[in-house]
Amino acid sequence: MWLSRAITLVESTKPEHRQLARQVVEACIQQRHDTIRLGITGVPGVGKSTFIEVLGLHVIAQGHKPAVLAIDPSSSVSKGSILGDKTRMNQLAANKQAYIRPSPSRGNLGGVAANTREAMLLCEAAGFDVIIIETVGVGQSETVVKHMVDTFLLLMLAGAGDELQGMKRGIMEMADLLVINKADGDNVKAAEKAATEYRNALHLFPPGPGGWTPPVATCSALQQERIDAVWQQVLKHRDTLQQHQLFEEHRQQQRLFWFREGVRNLVLEALYNNPTVQARIPELEAAITSGSMSSLRAAEELVKLFGKRN
Amino acid sequence: MWLSRAITLVESTKPEHRQLARQVVEACIQQRHDTIRLGITGVPGVGKSTFIEVLGLHVIAQGHKPAVLAIDPSSSVSKGSILGDKTRMNQLAANKQAYIRPSPSRGNLGGVAANTREAMLLCEAAGFDVIIIETVGVGQSETVVKHMVDTFLLLMLAGAGDELQGMKRGIMEMADLLVINKADGDNVKAAEKAATEYRNALHLFPPGPGGWTPPVATCSALQQERIDAVWQQVLKHRDTLQQHQLFEEHRQQQRLFWFREGVRNLVLEALYNNPTVQARIPELEAAITSGSMSSLRAAEELVKLFGKRN
Repeated sequence: MWLSRAITLVESTKPEHRQLARQVVEACIQQRHDTIRLGITGVPGVGKSTFIEVLGLHVIAQGHKPAVLAIDPSSSVSKGSILGDKTRMNQLAANKQAYIRPSPSRGNLGGVAANTREAMLLCEAAGFDVIIIETVGVGQSETVVKHMVDTFLLLMLAGAGDELQGMKRGIMEMADLLVINKADGDNVKAAEKAATEYRNALHLFPPGPGGWTPPVATCSALQQERIDAVWQQVLKHRDTLQQHQLFEEHRQQQRLFWFREGVRNLVLEALYNNPTVQARIPELEAAITSGSMSSLRAAEELVKLFGKRN
Repeated sequence: MWLSRAITLVESTKPEHRQLARQVVEACIQQRHDTIRLGITGVPGVGKSTFIEVLGLHVIAQGHKPAVLAIDPSSSVSKGSILGDKTRMNQLAANKQAYIRPSPSRGNLGGVAANTREAMLLCEAAGFDVIIIETVGVGQSETVVKHMVDTFLLLMLAGAGDELQGMKRGIMEMADLLVINKADGDNVKAAEKAATEYRNALHLFPPGPGGWTPPVATCSALQQERIDAVWQQVLKHRDTLQQHQLFEEHRQQQRLFWFREGVRNLVLEALYNNPTVQARIPELEAAITSGSMSSLRAAEELVKLFGKRN
């Protein structure tokens, strides 16, 4: 499939591949306004894979073609958790209307995120119209996913009282939609109670663009219950943004964000591929290591050198 | 005090101040091997301020001069939590042997972190020999603090069962030392139980450099109990690194990390201060906004322009 080959090119770190990848992306992207870009996050154990599989099959039944991408910073550090996505989403992976791409397992988060955004554009060009970007709840990756999706969904569990405090607050502030999963069997009451608590908590935050206050839904991905209610909230968020002429503005702001990201990545690529710069680095690193030169002074010298011979 | 003025210069975003700041830092830093650089993190509510105040007073009693710096990414987003440090550490702030600097309230994390590291070097040059860098438990800032300290201490509370899972795992993997605070009164038993659980959990991680497995201590900052035991663990970690010739190597690796960070910050500073580049940005942003040019293509054009006229 050309899409997988194109994404592999995008993920490559070889300069000649990067150059070709940029041409491919440039040639095939168009600004599509009819796609839905949905980010999904949640800590391990919350049931993300099952939820995404069920949601994916649901949108296929609605006539959509979903693509699932993943950003997992842990996979580059500790050979992570989202690598096995395809095997954990058997039914969706087997469905010809869907495309699933596991998280790239190496590279820094900034680079991986930029590549994932390009992969998303390639998926849209290939005809997929619901792009689901999955990530794990660790803070850094959420921020970059937030910058590439229209709607950001936080998947949670009931019965974890201190989820309301501390660590998760930053992620809660980013969410457009909260979903409490595993609301089935004995757990239904606890899930409803947690939903009420989160609703109260969310009212303490200022409303988002278009006056949007994140709704809190409960569902059971395992039992395939209330998945449509979640999907209707995704569509409602989209409608709200569109009604306030914020949908396209939001995507414009995101494109400007990725422009800055692109500048940063490309200028560093140019600098570190510069032969004069490359030749000087070992001496500077030796001076830094021995303590005869400060990190900052060495950095200044390298950047000056890049300026001269660029 | 010249130290405060020098740090203000370091935190300035004006190009002429930045240039002067680099000269000041360069002029006054020396590689001191006799200082202790301690990072402290923990979620809000864990009692960081009280702990740092009590620890600071303890090391003063041992003949040290502590400086407290802070990196708080939330302070730039939501006008944060560590701003009031001085007022929350009354006794330490009033002690002439200590220096407390609140977190800068603006700028991106990368820039703030680089500035904090320079502030740390200035503090060492000013004669402070125990540098405590405080941050909040949100994932991003921990990573940068880890890159500037010798020992990284995670402050926790007992009775939060799911702290062992998910979100905090990445931070636990970074910690050289775990301390369970508020181990006083009715809470002592729970703290000891939690300590045992954490000890068991930490044995599942591979040992760190020098065969170091992070010890788990309990203390009560409020009651000023077992603070010396914590301090002894900090010294023991330092001794272990030194015995394995890893202490200086660790700092060398960190200097190389900040060299790369410096290169990134300086080359972007040079690019965005370049008049040709500045003149072109509005047109490119308009083209991105209207959708006639992709973010990546615009980034490529800007970086090429910088290369030509640099």
